[in-house]
Amino acid sequence: MEIMRVVDELVCTRRVPGLQLCALRILKSPQGAISVATDPVGALIGNWVFVSAGSAARLAMKDATILTDLTICGIIDSWEEAG
Amino acid sequence: MEIMRVVDELVCTRRVPGLQLCALRILKSPQGAISVATDPVGALIGNWVFVSAGSAARLAMKDATILTDLTICGIIDSWEEAG
Amino acid sequence: MEIMRVVDELVCTRRVPGLQLCALRILKSPQGAISVATDPVGALIGNWVFVSAGSAARLAMKDATILTDLTICGIIDSWEEAG
Amino acid sequence: MEIMRVVDELVCTRRVPGLQLCALRILKSPQGAISVATDPVGALIGNWVFVSAGSAARLAMKDATILTDLTICGIIDSWEEAG
Amino acid sequence: MEIMRVVDELVCTRRVPGLQLCALRILKSPQGAISVATDPVGALIGNWVFVSAGSAARLAMKDATILTDLTICGIIDSWEEAG
Repeated sequence: MEIMRVVDELVCTRRVPGLQLCALRILKSPQGAISVATDPVGALIGNWVFVSAGSAARLAMKDATILTDLTICGIIDSWEEAG
Repeated sequence: MEIMRVVDELVCTRRVPGLQLCALRILKSPQGAISVATDPVGALIGNWVFVSAGSAARLAMKDATILTDLTICGIIDSWEEAG
Repeated sequence: MEIMRVVDELVCTRRVPGLQLCALRILKSPQGAISVATDPVGALIGNWVFVSAGSAARLAMKDATILTDLTICGIIDSWEEAG
Repeated sequence: MEIMRVVDELVCTRRVPGLQLCALRILKSPQGAISVATDPVGALIGNWVFVSAGSAARLAMKDATILTDLTICGIIDSWEEAG
Repeated sequence: MEIMRVVDELVCTRRVPGLQLCALRILKSPQGAISVATDPVGALIGNWVFVSAGSAARLAMKDATILTDLTICGIIDSWEEAG
């Protein structure tokens, strides 16, 4: 799992049916790479989170048919960016 | 999921049967890397999209037997490249 | 599998149910990248370990329903960082 | 899926049984990285192809029990390396 | 599949049960990255091999319950490092 920071929400009206109405967050890695993740936890902009990728990402959604490959699995209690 | 831009279509007459006649798009990441994705959404050249990889990419096709490892899952409503 | 070093524990009160109360370790690769892994082995801070990713990571947990994508599979008996 | 060029064949007498007698091609990415792929399409040295990775690579073989993680899915009709 | 060179064996007494007593090899990529792979082929230090990752790595073991994400699939007959 990777540690990333929530930097924004993703507005995306036109999407495949398998994503339903899931909340989508834009995340930034410590190296600056941008990714999109589904969020079953309710993370806020600015939160440091850790994410699970691949088939684990689907299982981490409450509904396992959601078509994601990256899901926020938890909000980190405290994190120093230099960590 | 990653955010990429549609830069072209891929013309490929000779392909494995499992890809059928799916539309194939050439995508470019913000870092400039080129990938090929199946497109069930109907994205246009120039659109910013987000893509799902791995087994999720197959499930995102209307027909789950399509042999892709990267599928366009949605068209982003607005995206600033510097974002 | 990759070789990494345990550098810290991850405190994360708010997490998806599928991770249960698993111990989470913060790992650092020889290149300095940070990852989070579940730990069924009981590794200590400073240990060099090797980790399995993807679906193998779930199978490596004693309980295969744990939603991880990176699991510590063993503690290396001796490892020279320059190795 | 990624776009790569066939640069050679791989001769490998001693292999795991699950690969059978599959043709193996050495591919080079536009960034110069070398990979090995199974080839159910019959690509020639010099061809630009696109490849599917992960579990999709196994499904793309005519025989789905072939133990590959990278399969040539199609030969691109025309490709400019600068593309 | 990737091409790598066997540079050492990995001694690891304390490991998850799912890895059993499998031989573990330390591999180095042409770019110098270090990985650990299970070895059902009997590769020697110095051999150039190609490896399969992900779920294919498990299937490539004679016993498919082995918890690996990287398996040596074959020993390359001849390989020039500059290749």
